[in-house]
Amino acid sequence: MSLLTVGSVAFDAIETPFGKTDKIVGGAATYITLTASYFTKKNNIIGVVGGDFPKEMIDTLEKHGVNTEGLEIKPEGKTFFWSGKYHNDMNTRDTLDTQLNVFGDFDPTIPASYQDCEYLMLGNMVPALQMTVLNRLHSRPKFVMLDTMNLWMNIALDDLKAVIAKADCLTINDEEARILSGDYSLRRAAKTIMAMGPKTLIIKKGEHGALLFQGDQVFFCPALPLEDVFDPTGAGDTFAGGFIGYLASTDDISFDNMKRAIVYGSAMASFCVEKFGSERIVGLTQEEITTRVQEFVQLAHFQI
Amino acid sequence: MSLLTVGSVAFDAIETPFGKTDKIVGGAATYITLTASYFTKKNNIIGVVGGDFPKEMIDTLEKHGVNTEGLEIKPEGKTFFWSGKYHNDMNTRDTLDTQLNVFGDFDPTIPASYQDCEYLMLGNMVPALQMTVLNRLHSRPKFVMLDTMNLWMNIALDDLKAVIAKADCLTINDEEARILSGDYSLRRAAKTIMAMGPKTLIIKKGEHGALLFQGDQVFFCPALPLEDVFDPTGAGDTFAGGFIGYLASTDDISFDNMKRAIVYGSAMASFCVEKFGSERIVGLTQEEITTRVQEFVQLAHFQI
Repeated sequence: MSLLTVGSVAFDAIETPFGKTDKIVGGAATYITLTASYFTKKNNIIGVVGGDFPKEMIDTLEKHGVNTEGLEIKPEGKTFFWSGKYHNDMNTRDTLDTQLNVFGDFDPTIPASYQDCEYLMLGNMVPALQMTVLNRLHSRPKFVMLDTMNLWMNIALDDLKAVIAKADCLTINDEEARILSGDYSLRRAAKTIMAMGPKTLIIKKGEHGALLFQGDQVFFCPALPLEDVFDPTGAGDTFAGGFIGYLASTDDISFDNMKRAIVYGSAMASFCVEKFGSERIVGLTQEEITTRVQEFVQLAHFQI
Repeated sequence: MSLLTVGSVAFDAIETPFGKTDKIVGGAATYITLTASYFTKKNNIIGVVGGDFPKEMIDTLEKHGVNTEGLEIKPEGKTFFWSGKYHNDMNTRDTLDTQLNVFGDFDPTIPASYQDCEYLMLGNMVPALQMTVLNRLHSRPKFVMLDTMNLWMNIALDDLKAVIAKADCLTINDEEARILSGDYSLRRAAKTIMAMGPKTLIIKKGEHGALLFQGDQVFFCPALPLEDVFDPTGAGDTFAGGFIGYLASTDDISFDNMKRAIVYGSAMASFCVEKFGSERIVGLTQEEITTRVQEFVQLAHFQI
C-alpha cells in the first residue's frame, strides 16, 4: 500500500564524542522515507527545501524509490538548519542553532497522485501543520501515524491534542509520555494518552528499547546493545520509517504485525546510529536487514 | 541441587513517594533465599543477626523451606540496619543511615551439612568476606554467582577483582558495569568484565530490564511495565534469588536455561516492587508465578 510522509527536510550540523560534521542532509521526512524505501515502493514525500539543497540528495531519494513530486524547492530560500551537540552519554543533547528558513513558511501542497495514500506518516513539526495535511487529504487514510516532541507540549498543547485525537498511532519518547500524561508510570501514562484518541501508542526509550501499547496489550522491543553508538541523530525517525514502511508493505495493522513492525523499526534504527547522519541507511542490502532482524530474535527470544 | 546463599540479614527503614516504613526485615540473603524457595527445596542460608531479630522472621524463612542452621544469632548484638529514601523517579535513592552492628564482625561459619552445595550465591558484602566463604568450602561449588556494588569498586577494588576472578557469574547494574570497565558502552563493558574471570555477566538496568552476556551471546529480558512501583528495595536480590534458584532447581547452566532463569528472576522482582520490603514475596503461589512469567512471554515474544 502507498505511504505518504510529511515532515522536515533539513541540514544538520552534528557534534558527538566521536567527531563533528559540517552541514549534512537530515530532517524527519528524509530519514523516514529513506528507511521506508526498504519496505514499500509506493513511498511519497511532502516537504520543502531551499535552493541550497543538493540535487544529489534528491537523486538519492529517487534512487531509493521515493516519489519527490511533493518535495517543493524554493530557489530563493534556504533549507531548514539545525545544529546540536550530544553529551557523553549520547542520550542527551543541546541544540546549538535552529534556523527554520523555508520550513517556517511551509504550506504543504498535496499532489493529486498522493491523494489515495493508505498510510500517512506525520513527521514531527508544528501540530497545526500536521492538521492542515490531514484536512487537505480528500479522504482519511487507513492508518495515520503521528510523531511529535516536547516543544509542542510546551507551546502548542491545544493544537497538539487536536491532532493526537485524529491519529491511529502516536510515537513519543518516555520523557514526552510523562510530560503529556503528567504521570511517571509509563503503564499509566499510556492509558491516559490512548484515552486522548490514538488506539496505539509507541513509547521510545532510546538505548533502552521501545514499548508498544494497544488497549490492555503491551509489547517491548529491546534496542540492540552496540559496541559504538556513533550518532543518534535520526534514530527516532528511522525507527518510525521502518515501522510504518513495514505496516504499509504488509497492509496488516493487527497487533501481532505491529510487533514485527517495531522489530523492523528497531533494526533500522540500530543501523542509523552506527554512522553520522543518514549515511548508514543509504544503500543497505536486504540481507543486512534480515541478518540484523535475526539478531533481535536472538536477543529477545526464550522458551519457557 | 542444593543452593547456599551468604549475605546480609538486616533491618531496613524505607521511605518512598508512596509512604514510609518502620524497621522491617530486609537484607540480601533474606530476599535471595525467600525467592529461591519457590524453586529449590535445598536452600541454605549463612548470615548473622542480633538478639533484636524477630523469631517470626526465622519461622517465615523456615516455613519457606530455608535451612537456617547457618544463620548465627548473637544475643548481645544488634542486627545490621540500613535506612534510605527513594527519589520520585524510584531509580535513585539516598542512604540516610547505615549501622553495621553484628554484620561488621561477621565471620561466616559453614555448617558441615552445607559443604556439599552445588550452587553458591555470594550476596553483596565486603569482597574479602565473599572470598573467605569460598575458601572455607572444602570443594568448589559447580556454579558460583557473585553480587556486588559500586562501594566496593571505590574502596576495595583489588579484593573485589580477586573474588570476581573466582566467580562463574557476576551480577551488577549498568552504572557499576560502566565504573568497573571504564567504558560507557555496555557491550564493550561486558567484554572487559568477562575478561576479568566470569564466563557469564548479568547487567541489571532496573525498570529497563536486564542483559545476560556469555561469550559473544547476549540476551535481554525486559522489566514488566507496572502501573505502580511501590518500593524497589530488594528487587536486585529478588532477581538474583529467582535466577540462581531456577538454575539450582533445574541443574542446567546452559545459556538457553540461563535465559529462562533471567525471566523467572525478572518475574520475581516484578512482585517484589509491588509492596514494601519482602511483603509481596512471602506466600506467593506457583500459579501467581506461572501467570506472571506468561506476562513476560506476551511482553517479549514476536514472530518474524
